[in-house]
Order: sequence, then C-alpha cells, then structure tokens
Amino acid sequence: MAEPASGAASERTKVRRSAKRGVYDRETIYSILDEALICHVGFAVDDQPFVIPTIHVRVDDKLYLHGSTSSRMMRRLGEGSAACVTVTLLDGLVLARSWFHHSMNYRSVVILARGSAVTDREEKALVFRALVEQVVRGRADDSRAPTEQEADATAVVRFSIDEASAKIRGGPPMDTETDMELPHWAGVVPLALRAGAPLADPTLAPGIVTPKYALDYRRPSNGV
Amino acid sequence: MAEPASGAASERTKVRRSAKRGVYDRETIYSILDEALICHVGFAVDDQPFVIPTIHVRVDDKLYLHGSTSSRMMRRLGEGSAACVTVTLLDGLVLARSWFHHSMNYRSVVILARGSAVTDREEKALVFRALVEQVVRGRADDSRAPTEQEADATAVVRFSIDEASAKIRGGPPMDTETDMELPHWAGVVPLALRAGAPLADPTLAPGIVTPKYALDYRRPSNGV
Repeated sequence: MAEPASGAASERTKVRRSAKRGVYDRETIYSILDEALICHVGFAVDDQPFVIPTIHVRVDDKLYLHGSTSSRMMRRLGEGSAACVTVTLLDGLVLARSWFHHSMNYRSVVILARGSAVTDREEKALVFRALVEQVVRGRADDSRAPTEQEADATAVVRFSIDEASAKIRGGPPMDTETDMELPHWAGVVPLALRAGAPLADPTLAPGIVTPKYALDYRRPSNGV
Repeated sequence: MAEPASGAASERTKVRRSAKRGVYDRETIYSILDEALICHVGFAVDDQPFVIPTIHVRVDDKLYLHGSTSSRMMRRLGEGSAACVTVTLLDGLVLARSWFHHSMNYRSVVILARGSAVTDREEKALVFRALVEQVVRGRADDSRAPTEQEADATAVVRFSIDEASAKIRGGPPMDTETDMELPHWAGVVPLALRAGAPLADPTLAPGIVTPKYALDYRRPSNGV
C-alpha cells in the first residue's frame, strides 16, 4: 500500500508490527472512519486507561464525538486530555493450515489527538445532523432536530485527524511453505455487519410506513 | 437488570451514565466476551493512551491476549501496566422520533486489570488452542498446532476478570411523550456480524472439501 504525500502518520502512529499492513493515505483512513458505526475511545484517569465505545462522525478532516454534558469521558476529552480513537472493521476470518498463521481480515484506524470542546451552536448543530446521517443516511430530515435544551445537554468534542494511521489485512492466508502439503482446508470466511428486517416501535401509529433507508440498510462500501 | 452476589463491579467500573443499563453478573459478562471476536485494549505509554484491536479468549475467570513477543503492547501488558479491555457487540440502530433519542442497541464489557505474562508452556498451549476454538469451533483439531519455535515467538498475557462491568441497551426507542404524535417512523434496525460463503485459498489442493464449521459459520448466540 502506498504512502502518499497526504499521509497523516507520525512516529507515534506508525504501524510497528506487520509494517506491510500499515497504510496512511487520508482517503483510506476516511473511508474506514466513515464505514464504521462506532469507535473505541481511549483516555486516562489517574493513570488508568479507559476504553469506551461510542458513535463518531467525520466532517472533513475533523472527527467528532458527542455525549452527555455530565459524562466524565466527555469532560476529560473536552479538556484536551490525551486520547486515542480507534475504529475497527472486521472483514473475515483467515483460516491458515497452522494455528500460528490464523488471522483476521480487517481495516482499522488509530487516531492520536487531544480534543476540544465544541461550544459554537452552529458547529454543534452541524455535528448533530452529521451524526444522524452518518448512522442512517436520510434520517435527519425524517426525525425531529434537537431543541435548544437538548443541544445544551449534549457535549461535543472535536479532534483533528492529523496523527492517524490505518492498518489493513486482506486476502487469503499466508502459510509457510512447509505447511502447504497439510490436508487441512485453508481460506477465508468473510464477515460483515448486516442489517435484519426493521422492527417497528410497538407504539408506532398505524399508517406510518417503514422508510426505505431502514428496509435497505447497509453501510457504505460494506461488501462481502 | 439484577446485580447478583457474583457481581464483579468496582467503584471504577460502575456504569456512570445510564445507570439502568449497567449489568454486572458474571454470566452476562462472560457471554458477551465469548460472543465477541475482538476486543479493544487500552494501555498508556508516557501518558498517551493507545487503543488497539486484538483477539481475546476467556478461559474460566481469566481473559487472555496474545501477540508477537516483539510487540510493544504485549510487552507493556505483560509488565502489568494498567490496562482496559473493552468488548462491544452492536445489535441494532435505534431510530427514535427525535435526533436526541437516537441510539444503538449493544452489549459491551469493560475490564480494568493489570496483566501478567504467561510463561508456563502448558498454560500457553491451552491458550493457543482456546484462541483458535474461540474464533472457529472445531478448527484446532483441523489445523497444525504451534511448533516450539512458534510458541516461543508468541507472547501471552493473562488478566483476571475481577473488575468488570457490562452495559446493555436493547428494545425499542424511548421517545419523549410529546414526540409520540410526530409523523416519523420509529423502530430498530437489527444488526449482526454475518458470515458469507467461504473463499478457499487459491493454493488449496484439489479434493479438500470446505468444512462445515466454515460453511455454517456463526457466533454463539448471535441472533437477529
């Protein structure tokens, strides 16, 4: 994988193990961030790291998280505490002839950054819409936007996607030469997050039809 | 959700936000750990948190990670650096009538622990088998076990699952009373990690049939 001039890797985000799996171009990093529904955010409190799953959205070269204003995580992140935001997409199980070479096909992104609390109302409003649309395209115009009170109760933190790297494994198993004669099946079991049939809210008023974005739900470029 | 005597929560792992979503019984925590294919591990280097995806396996009340002996993460974890291991299963998109009440259905576990490097060969051998079986049940006996050299090149770290908590959201959206008259569809789009048709290694010898565990692959208790 190439490492173009637009690369965003630093000494700290350089892929150390399996260096051939490291990719750093922004287009790749953005496509992984955009396909993932959740990220895992790392931050520390008194030397204890915490890793918390949450929704994210990328807008241009910024990544935004949101949460309750009373959340400890949002407070820490908004104060600019050192953070790590990691996104992982599982693409398959790699079944090699040896246990040792078993692996996963995946695409992941690691971002190191210090966040800033977003207080500007217009920026927050843009982020709220982007968050809804990141999860379900078409939903923002088909549901109620936040009241001022709801917006005030929601903290938003902005991260620059400057120090970031992606790591990707794809393709078949890589067995050692001496294992090729073994009688075991080898290959990949593809994996993808798939949507099932939408379940209407039990209190839904009669006559409201299930929208197409729920019936045909899938992630962008999520292909098995 | 109940909090039985077997609970493993501490002051640090107590679910702070949405306390009604916190569950702490070991059975629930174990079932989430066992269903998940990967975890996200948090550790710090010079005050910078890192969050790295990796495979885990639970054996009784221990959680094991593995990696290259030359991996910085494995070294840090094996030294007993404060760590956080988080596992998240996405079960659905919760589409409420308001943006504010949009949510996800999920099951997650957060474990705080300091790891210990496993050096005992027998314990390592058990863990290697458990790791393969955790990913694909039935695969360990249908592929080659590690050589001594491969075992020596693989670091294993053990964590006690003592300080742990689970967080679960399930069911329909929870809209506010005043939104119930809105004309928007509301409900859940179920999500699950699904396997596609296995892809045989291009170098697979003719006559080796695709095993049933690859053809019918699914996670334990992964139901949409």
